[in-house]
Amino acid sequence: MSNDFQPVSGFDLPRFAGVPTFMRLPHVPLGAPGLRDVGIGLIGIPWDSGTTNRPGPRHGPRQLRDLSTMIRAEHAVTGHRPFEAANCADLGDVGPNPADILDTLERVSAFYSEVRAAGIRPLTAGGDHLCSLPVLRALAKDGPLGMVHFDSHTDLFHSYFGGTMYTHGTPFRRAVEEELLDPKRVVQIGIRGTAYDREDRDFAEAVGIRVIPIEEVFDRGVADVMAEARDIVGTAPTYVSYDIDFVDPAYAPGTGTPEVGGPNSYQALQVVRALSGLDIVGADMVEVSPPFDTSGGTAFLAVSIMFELLCVMTGG
Amino acid sequence: MSNDFQPVSGFDLPRFAGVPTFMRLPHVPLGAPGLRDVGIGLIGIPWDSGTTNRPGPRHGPRQLRDLSTMIRAEHAVTGHRPFEAANCADLGDVGPNPADILDTLERVSAFYSEVRAAGIRPLTAGGDHLCSLPVLRALAKDGPLGMVHFDSHTDLFHSYFGGTMYTHGTPFRRAVEEELLDPKRVVQIGIRGTAYDREDRDFAEAVGIRVIPIEEVFDRGVADVMAEARDIVGTAPTYVSYDIDFVDPAYAPGTGTPEVGGPNSYQALQVVRALSGLDIVGADMVEVSPPFDTSGGTAFLAVSIMFELLCVMTGG
Amino acid sequence: MSNDFQPVSGFDLPRFAGVPTFMRLPHVPLGAPGLRDVGIGLIGIPWDSGTTNRPGPRHGPRQLRDLSTMIRAEHAVTGHRPFEAANCADLGDVGPNPADILDTLERVSAFYSEVRAAGIRPLTAGGDHLCSLPVLRALAKDGPLGMVHFDSHTDLFHSYFGGTMYTHGTPFRRAVEEELLDPKRVVQIGIRGTAYDREDRDFAEAVGIRVIPIEEVFDRGVADVMAEARDIVGTAPTYVSYDIDFVDPAYAPGTGTPEVGGPNSYQALQVVRALSGLDIVGADMVEVSPPFDTSGGTAFLAVSIMFELLCVMTGG
Amino acid sequence: MSNDFQPVSGFDLPRFAGVPTFMRLPHVPLGAPGLRDVGIGLIGIPWDSGTTNRPGPRHGPRQLRDLSTMIRAEHAVTGHRPFEAANCADLGDVGPNPADILDTLERVSAFYSEVRAAGIRPLTAGGDHLCSLPVLRALAKDGPLGMVHFDSHTDLFHSYFGGTMYTHGTPFRRAVEEELLDPKRVVQIGIRGTAYDREDRDFAEAVGIRVIPIEEVFDRGVADVMAEARDIVGTAPTYVSYDIDFVDPAYAPGTGTPEVGGPNSYQALQVVRALSGLDIVGADMVEVSPPFDTSGGTAFLAVSIMFELLCVMTGG
Amino acid sequence: MSNDFQPVSGFDLPRFAGVPTFMRLPHVPLGAPGLRDVGIGLIGIPWDSGTTNRPGPRHGPRQLRDLSTMIRAEHAVTGHRPFEAANCADLGDVGPNPADILDTLERVSAFYSEVRAAGIRPLTAGGDHLCSLPVLRALAKDGPLGMVHFDSHTDLFHSYFGGTMYTHGTPFRRAVEEELLDPKRVVQIGIRGTAYDREDRDFAEAVGIRVIPIEEVFDRGVADVMAEARDIVGTAPTYVSYDIDFVDPAYAPGTGTPEVGGPNSYQALQVVRALSGLDIVGADMVEVSPPFDTSGGTAFLAVSIMFELLCVMTGG
Amino acid sequence: MSNDFQPVSGFDLPRFAGVPTFMRLPHVPLGAPGLRDVGIGLIGIPWDSGTTNRPGPRHGPRQLRDLSTMIRAEHAVTGHRPFEAANCADLGDVGPNPADILDTLERVSAFYSEVRAAGIRPLTAGGDHLCSLPVLRALAKDGPLGMVHFDSHTDLFHSYFGGTMYTHGTPFRRAVEEELLDPKRVVQIGIRGTAYDREDRDFAEAVGIRVIPIEEVFDRGVADVMAEARDIVGTAPTYVSYDIDFVDPAYAPGTGTPEVGGPNSYQALQVVRALSGLDIVGADMVEVSPPFDTSGGTAFLAVSIMFELLCVMTGG
Repeated sequence: MSNDFQPVSGFDLPRFAGVPTFMRLPHVPLGAPGLRDVGIGLIGIPWDSGTTNRPGPRHGPRQLRDLSTMIRAEHAVTGHRPFEAANCADLGDVGPNPADILDTLERVSAFYSEVRAAGIRPLTAGGDHLCSLPVLRALAKDGPLGMVHFDSHTDLFHSYFGGTMYTHGTPFRRAVEEELLDPKRVVQIGIRGTAYDREDRDFAEAVGIRVIPIEEVFDRGVADVMAEARDIVGTAPTYVSYDIDFVDPAYAPGTGTPEVGGPNSYQALQVVRALSGLDIVGADMVEVSPPFDTSGGTAFLAVSIMFELLCVMTGG
Repeated sequence: MSNDFQPVSGFDLPRFAGVPTFMRLPHVPLGAPGLRDVGIGLIGIPWDSGTTNRPGPRHGPRQLRDLSTMIRAEHAVTGHRPFEAANCADLGDVGPNPADILDTLERVSAFYSEVRAAGIRPLTAGGDHLCSLPVLRALAKDGPLGMVHFDSHTDLFHSYFGGTMYTHGTPFRRAVEEELLDPKRVVQIGIRGTAYDREDRDFAEAVGIRVIPIEEVFDRGVADVMAEARDIVGTAPTYVSYDIDFVDPAYAPGTGTPEVGGPNSYQALQVVRALSGLDIVGADMVEVSPPFDTSGGTAFLAVSIMFELLCVMTGG
Repeated sequence: MSNDFQPVSGFDLPRFAGVPTFMRLPHVPLGAPGLRDVGIGLIGIPWDSGTTNRPGPRHGPRQLRDLSTMIRAEHAVTGHRPFEAANCADLGDVGPNPADILDTLERVSAFYSEVRAAGIRPLTAGGDHLCSLPVLRALAKDGPLGMVHFDSHTDLFHSYFGGTMYTHGTPFRRAVEEELLDPKRVVQIGIRGTAYDREDRDFAEAVGIRVIPIEEVFDRGVADVMAEARDIVGTAPTYVSYDIDFVDPAYAPGTGTPEVGGPNSYQALQVVRALSGLDIVGADMVEVSPPFDTSGGTAFLAVSIMFELLCVMTGG
Repeated sequence: MSNDFQPVSGFDLPRFAGVPTFMRLPHVPLGAPGLRDVGIGLIGIPWDSGTTNRPGPRHGPRQLRDLSTMIRAEHAVTGHRPFEAANCADLGDVGPNPADILDTLERVSAFYSEVRAAGIRPLTAGGDHLCSLPVLRALAKDGPLGMVHFDSHTDLFHSYFGGTMYTHGTPFRRAVEEELLDPKRVVQIGIRGTAYDREDRDFAEAVGIRVIPIEEVFDRGVADVMAEARDIVGTAPTYVSYDIDFVDPAYAPGTGTPEVGGPNSYQALQVVRALSGLDIVGADMVEVSPPFDTSGGTAFLAVSIMFELLCVMTGG
Repeated sequence: MSNDFQPVSGFDLPRFAGVPTFMRLPHVPLGAPGLRDVGIGLIGIPWDSGTTNRPGPRHGPRQLRDLSTMIRAEHAVTGHRPFEAANCADLGDVGPNPADILDTLERVSAFYSEVRAAGIRPLTAGGDHLCSLPVLRALAKDGPLGMVHFDSHTDLFHSYFGGTMYTHGTPFRRAVEEELLDPKRVVQIGIRGTAYDREDRDFAEAVGIRVIPIEEVFDRGVADVMAEARDIVGTAPTYVSYDIDFVDPAYAPGTGTPEVGGPNSYQALQVVRALSGLDIVGADMVEVSPPFDTSGGTAFLAVSIMFELLCVMTGG
Repeated sequence: MSNDFQPVSGFDLPRFAGVPTFMRLPHVPLGAPGLRDVGIGLIGIPWDSGTTNRPGPRHGPRQLRDLSTMIRAEHAVTGHRPFEAANCADLGDVGPNPADILDTLERVSAFYSEVRAAGIRPLTAGGDHLCSLPVLRALAKDGPLGMVHFDSHTDLFHSYFGGTMYTHGTPFRRAVEEELLDPKRVVQIGIRGTAYDREDRDFAEAVGIRVIPIEEVFDRGVADVMAEARDIVGTAPTYVSYDIDFVDPAYAPGTGTPEVGGPNSYQALQVVRALSGLDIVGADMVEVSPPFDTSGGTAFLAVSIMFELLCVMTGG
């Protein structure tokens, strides 16, 4: 661990001061000399062109950086100090092309391929859920990954609007088709809301994805559900994808396709703590949409969850 | 079931597009030829002149229509598809007179009498809680109805401001007096908040209305309380009245007289699902006040509950 | 003039009541029998995929419909009554594909071709400024049009992000290249804000587009500038494109790329009144972005301007 | 002048501290001994039951009190110190009956009759514009008054919704009919917005009310228009009624029926200063609607105008 | 009990009317004759100069007064009527010096010494948490007090920013050092959030303060934890300090240093009810920050909790 | 001019992407090697402890950085490109001590002394107006400076709250006393609003400061007033201090002590352009308070003005 990678403390510089980087970490762009010392890279993907409903997550990384300056260095329950356990840095944002989906898919994959080549595990701040697809394309080069997926939607649809294949409702359909994910090692937790039809769930069933609806989460409890989730992904390399609309909109109104009847913020943190010990090769926090919560409350919850993700990625 | 009554799908037309009707259903005004095919009519009553505190629910139907375009066709848990189970349509709004309470009571009753005469069961979007009174006047022509009432207030007071009889705090006192409701078949669930005095509860006790305070809901659990509620109303014709302030204001801030310490959004849905099998002759969702939640979050919760109501009204 | 096309009066039905159509006009979709009687069609294009900065105008048509219910039937200054001067109707929205720009360009052109074929002049509610391009493709079939363009930006850039040709910063570059506009009959009024470079203005100069910066508007006055504008477009067919960011953001905060130092709301109306007598074949109001002004103030200004546009399109 | 009636200074107690009364003056309810020493009474009428569109002004007095703690003791331009020129006090609110219009008209008139009997001139904070009617009923007991009326609407309509006589669109029609106002000494300034029809203006013309539309204000300038206004009302007793929607909604968004294209805040103050020297028997500031501007900006403008009114009422 | 100290009822005067005092009680400033009859004084401390992060609680007392007009006279569950059990009054605000911390500490202590000398028990509305220190200095003159402290932070740090001793993160460190609190009779409930380090918890452990983290609250349940809390403080004089950030930010967003994963509003009330029977010499509600919740929802929850505090302070 | 100091273009990276520095310039902290090449340093002072009323400007620098990513490279009217005329960089924030005014005054002066020693001219983003005092202490080491001061307040008061000398209402009183400013070369423009008394203006008159009230600005016009301002400061070294409350609150609501009746945004820019040719040794933009305008509109106006300041500081 290098001292260069310690976040600025709120005891020294108040939380509202300074150029805001993720969790007040040093900004180390791709190509910078310090990159080789980074173990975990926090990366923004300010892109929401796959959004079929209310856009806004392109503004996510900036608000998440802003609110992340409220995060401190130590996990209160476990005492884990992730910034001492690994060198963490803000790698900046992938530059998107908001008017060209295919171009941006390429840009993101290229960026993450470089990150992976540098031996850095990425913790991504989206962006809408389509962002996960090009990240997986870069990370799954050695074979399909397992995935723990928190969401109120499966994002497993085939296409929208008469055949459009790349939207925030289709990334994991594509990821399974492209063999980036091993469907038998994929678990989706918190699914709810009114449904179009059963096309997504039929696909899940056909390929072996385990879908855990919210009713099951509440009936069985977080601990039991998460034990099953750990069993499903096992000890092989696993990706964690966290759509903020997993959480009830009272706690996370700043998102484009909320669904009522979800978990509270305590449960939102608990489900991540339960991932401790998994082999997490990357994680993301997506669908935070600042125009729908200018107060920053949603973003603060999201960065609190990102801190939990960082803890389980660093042995906490 | 006629195909004419299917809602527009978000796969075809994005949810933010199109003239917003309730749940993207066809708009069938009174007098239109299609009316005879309608089984369930969604109706707005944009009226809040009975409000003793913070007005706003007159704007409710428009915001509820707007947010209802986020609702899809299928219940995720039960698989029930209400728009296939019955012909549903948006019958438009009752035209109120915002400066004359007695005139508006007449207008609403006249509208609903016509709806009832057409054999249509109404699902109403208020409006403040005084709206329920003229609706009951139209629906209870064959005798008093039972009622399941979700609220944080009993709305059973005798009068306000030195003798004013028609406010949103008095509708069910009037309805009992006018023999529109059978008090022995009325249950009020979720009552809480600081109290003026016990005049309303004394009345409830005297006539046999069962009041279940929120403490009892939390102590006994939703399932147990709702089993009692079903017993109380039995198999005879029953009305369901849902004041959005039943739900905790963190989930439903857009209302005029919130009371803290209420149920969450999951419980807000569960209590309706538990009504499955009752003989529901009509239902309403009242007190959504858009000026107090311009984000639309309260309205989205309200239309999600309306979808649940629609499901139990159509055999779901 | 048919009585069927009169808007609902606020004396009869309060402005907050009823399913909201543009200016409370009848909803006459393409294909409906009444279409042949329509002279002017108000149309929504809920699409903002061309936005390079802050998205949101896809929500414009719905908020514009909502606020348009505040508009009454008569122009207070001229006494003109546009709904009596022509049959006006709400033709609904073009169904966009938010995840495919080329597909949506086609969809919009097809819709407007049908409108034009029916002899209807369109008054469009966007959507971002890229919407104007497919509308012009449909309207300019008999030859290039003149254009009066109110905006703080020229929207004449060649491309963005390394070659992307279709964004809300490029529509009129494309329209000139495609000979939909006659650049010598194009005037752009209100241009201001910091500049990338002079590429857009060099193009304007090269092809003969007259650019009137805001300083000139304030120095010469609205009357003088608008006299010049009328001279430029002359008596031949002319399109009017009105970007709400023409107006100062204090008056119109709900837009994605505001520029300070613009006209006030009185001037915003005056410039349209000055178009009286022109041969206007169509007009649009674009870039109203509801997520950036949930109060509806921007939309209300926009519909007030649309009413002025309607007046000058109907001989007012 | 008594020292008891001096407002608390922001040099002694910060503006955000203390129980908020109008302009930090002493609270002297009707019946209190200090009442006999009061020269000008600031009074709230928290009532908006006459509102035909978006309610909210019932919350006006409280927000106006809150923001009025920002007002200091001296007029910066004239050096006039109104609180030294007359004993001013907060007389509290008239208690309305929000569910009974006729009852409330009586309550307000009774309150103001008592105020007038005590020799106190009232400066009223509404409430919607119907509030002015019962105030005039109390003040015009010795004969019809003149009136300077700032507004974007004439409020001269006969009735709404099929014959309803008491709404915020009819108070001055009633006041002329009841001979509370001398129409030949009434001037209405700033009228604008789309019009239903010409019924109100025909009435004005018939009885001799001078209506000055906003175009005339801008063309002739404030000084010229106000000179005419002073001539119209002359030296006889005059009431001043100020509807905040006189001002452009960019400056005063917190109101129920805004009309774009109005004066700015500087002009909003200037028109009042021009009333210096008139015999003002009472004044009001109405239609401030806090739910539509929770920021308090509208209320702050309104209390700044109320301070100007106080200055011209006290010889400033 | 004197009738002079009864709050105004909403049946007589609507809740939005009248000069807002705490819970619509009479305003009895220090020095007023009625002071000798007061048993419990509600006092505002509009001061937030100790805030290290986002300021705003200086505006707390005014918003709390505003929302407290929604509180009624009777506890719905227990039937307790606190305003009949003791004479309660609004004593007004302590006048702070926002630009001098030491001066303000003196001002607050002096005010509360006078309150204590008059035999009045204070219920304080802050202000940030530093407010509790000068209050304790006045109340603990006969020896150290016990304290039940609801918060997400311990506020036990030694200093900030290189040695600054008086901030809202240090009040209870000072209070223990100054022997205002008996650490063995102090319990802190709800502690959570990311941590700087363990300096505060080490101090707690060293002096014997019991810290109950939120995990323990959720695992053991409110009843069990509160039983322990009652045991810790025992029957000796006890202070209750309630930081609104104890509650989850979904319920109480209007605060400067929120921490996700907290209790809901029902639990927020339950923990206070469990204090029934203790010897409470004073209580406070701090850190409500109106600029971060202009809706008033946080303040309404806070005054609902203050009503519970009032009940347990008056034998309820 | 070095290419290293060019801002990122919105053609390459969308404006919402990337770690936000002032105007997308490189971040060059004190002590960094690149510092020696910097000509103009943009610096944040996130500090508002001198605020006597509504706090918030401590959050200013972060929001100003965020919105400044909307600024492009070229002045549209003059064609001036400031980032090519001088090496500009973001020097980061001064670290304040929010709980100790004297300590922070030292910290700011020390930071700016270092900046001055490096030959860098500062363009400051506050913070409240007390920030200007320690900046002047660092910049005026060779003798008193002239000052052009845009504001609605003089900030010339002696003290507040019984003798407190350092608040945002006193900085220029101190600066004159400390001979940092030459009062005969100081002009204050835009002064307005209700006044406490004449203590500040008497001081101005006594020492020879020219105060231009807003009435004079509107009567004489911007050009005439600014010609006088240029004459007053002459060709000697001059500081420019711009309080955002100079502008009317409709354009700049995000500030703590607004005064209505101010200039519009066009005039807000024009007054700065008129400073072209002066010898400007430093400038600031203060009192932007994000909690009072979360939309960012005020901050966008402020950074647009900062761009104008940058232009006149670099020969534009």
